Amino acid sequence: MVMEVEIEQVLHMKDGQDDTSYANASYMQKQVISLTKHIKEKAIKELYCKKQPATLRIADLGCSMANSLTVVSDLLATIDKARRGLENGPQEYQVYLNDLPRNDFNAIFRSLGCFEDKLKQQLGNDFGYCFVNGVPGSFYGRLFPTNHLQFVHSSYSLHWLSQVPDEIEDNKGNIFLARTSPSNVLEAYYKQFEKDFSMFLRCRSEEVIEGGMMVLTILGRKSSEIYSKESCNMFDLLATAINDMVIEGFIEEEKLNKFNIPIYTPSATELRFLVEKEGSFTLNEDHVSEVSWEANDLNKNSSTAVHYDFVKCVRSVAEPFLILHFGETIIEEIFLRYTELVQVSVAKEKSVFINVTVSLTRKG
Amino acid sequence: MVMEVEIEQVLHMKDGQDDTSYANASYMQKQVISLTKHIKEKAIKELYCKKQPATLRIADLGCSMANSLTVVSDLLATIDKARRGLENGPQEYQVYLNDLPRNDFNAIFRSLGCFEDKLKQQLGNDFGYCFVNGVPGSFYGRLFPTNHLQFVHSSYSLHWLSQVPDEIEDNKGNIFLARTSPSNVLEAYYKQFEKDFSMFLRCRSEEVIEGGMMVLTILGRKSSEIYSKESCNMFDLLATAINDMVIEGFIEEEKLNKFNIPIYTPSATELRFLVEKEGSFTLNEDHVSEVSWEANDLNKNSSTAVHYDFVKCVRSVAEPFLILHFGETIIEEIFLRYTELVQVSVAKEKSVFINVTVSLTRKG
Repeated sequence: MVMEVEIEQVLHMKDGQDDTSYANASYMQKQVISLTKHIKEKAIKELYCKKQPATLRIADLGCSMANSLTVVSDLLATIDKARRGLENGPQEYQVYLNDLPRNDFNAIFRSLGCFEDKLKQQLGNDFGYCFVNGVPGSFYGRLFPTNHLQFVHSSYSLHWLSQVPDEIEDNKGNIFLARTSPSNVLEAYYKQFEKDFSMFLRCRSEEVIEGGMMVLTILGRKSSEIYSKESCNMFDLLATAINDMVIEGFIEEEKLNKFNIPIYTPSATELRFLVEKEGSFTLNEDHVSEVSWEANDLNKNSSTAVHYDFVKCVRSVAEPFLILHFGETIIEEIFLRYTELVQVSVAKEKSVFINVTVSLTRKG
Repeated sequence: MVMEVEIEQVLHMKDGQDDTSYANASYMQKQVISLTKHIKEKAIKELYCKKQPATLRIADLGCSMANSLTVVSDLLATIDKARRGLENGPQEYQVYLNDLPRNDFNAIFRSLGCFEDKLKQQLGNDFGYCFVNGVPGSFYGRLFPTNHLQFVHSSYSLHWLSQVPDEIEDNKGNIFLARTSPSNVLEAYYKQFEKDFSMFLRCRSEEVIEGGMMVLTILGRKSSEIYSKESCNMFDLLATAINDMVIEGFIEEEKLNKFNIPIYTPSATELRFLVEKEGSFTLNEDHVSEVSWEANDLNKNSSTAVHYDFVKCVRSVAEPFLILHFGETIIEEIFLRYTELVQVSVAKEKSVFINVTVSLTRKG
């Protein structure tokens, strides 16, 4: 449990608006949100037309703040269109933004005025009410009253485990170095994911009404094997950078061997299997999408700038863990080497990361 | 509307934990919470026993953060006792903490772990679930879905107006200098309070279920006249301090005449009248209580320390407005003079401030 608390404290992304902060480095997430838009829209439209609730309750879990209001306004636009098609009156929405307590809720609360103005502009003044609430807490526990939610969304959060598996002591570079990790380490990580994801489903099964829906997007793998050695590429090169520094004597090998990031990237097969096993939700569809490491942004023409986005994104996620374990002094060197490795890799082959999206309905 | 935005930005109390911050200077509020405890407990017990809802939804409006969790745990202790008396199972609570978006929600969210531990210690592990949500926004507008809340609490917030009355231009020292203010200024302030308080009741009448209850405590007056010239003493001496500085040439008279604090302190009679006029709620009881300016704290023996608490409390509320209008340079001098005036006043006579509490039930 000590480790769990520690992870919750580390896992709050970087506050504020500096260059490597999560808010600015969320390009990849935006891509994912856009790639999975059709699945979310299909689900929320189906839900609205079937239920037409007086108040529609939506939760964004592990909402990473910066992008969650984009997701919410997309969902509301879809419902508003359906509502007008059905000639229904104004709709009340209750939107819950969840993240760990150490995240910067103040920042998002201060941007809500702007969000509401945009909503009215987009949907018209007569769209209804959108009440936005902050929900601090871990989604591996209960967050909402029984039978409360109609729709749950989570993007890019569920690959975070609640803790590093207990039995992992000396991991020879953990899942992070998946290609070289011993299979008992990989198995332990899978077991932890199974435990956490099942707990997630169990908690949501209490909170989501019968017929309510969930759309979950997780950083995943393509391989269909259970705990395969196919690694998560975005962290793989970071591991290579650190490994090189071990070989050159900048980092002690023992230190590397005790380094863990509590992350597991499941395959669609694993998710399907675990959803069925837990039993409260029906899987409507799953969808695997790829996001290129190269930003497709026309404003950024130099190849350095393009890769920088990706590096910033990985850095914003991994840096707190790296600093906690290795100290602050070697951070710049690690990411200098990482940037070089990424540039070489992108020049050589198309590098992507994989997202697995599942759309689920709460059984009766 | 420009003024309204400005007030919302000023009216967020001081962040953090410094000496004059709201969190530390909330002794007076704690007194009030304790003095009005029996009214809240009576109301919530009556509500629980009558409704026994699966999820009990409580909102603390304008929650001033520091003390609101104390109120919540008192309410939950009362319900838990009633629940055990009725041999009911565990209870789910959804607790909404509301304040203006610029308040420091992060601080309270980070203290929730500690709050939950205490709750389990106090009520036992089997008490149920308490889900705490943050609700950023003005309570002079809608904050919750229709028919959503069972219980609303608000302490020390509703004397804040949504804006300085429009027609007040040159106020000769406003309500703040009530004894010397022209009666048209007082009337304008009363009209603004009437408008705001009626809007508050109208919004809550949509949100609170039939039979749901509200307990509101407002910084008030004893006098039963409508817009009487009896001033709010705690600010009166502050006005004297500023006035003295005008006489001595430290502050321009014109500057003082344009200074307004958007506050109105109603009498119990006014509240009763406005509740009846709006018509959605039945008034069960009203209660006037007094809190002495002198802190009753045994740890603080020197007379300076005792008065310092009170001065800090007033300072934490008034300072943002004073700085905005008069600039930062004269703040220390104002509060030096104010502290002296408070010490003289307390030595001479018993000085109190007045709280008016009303307990209301939503009509069917």
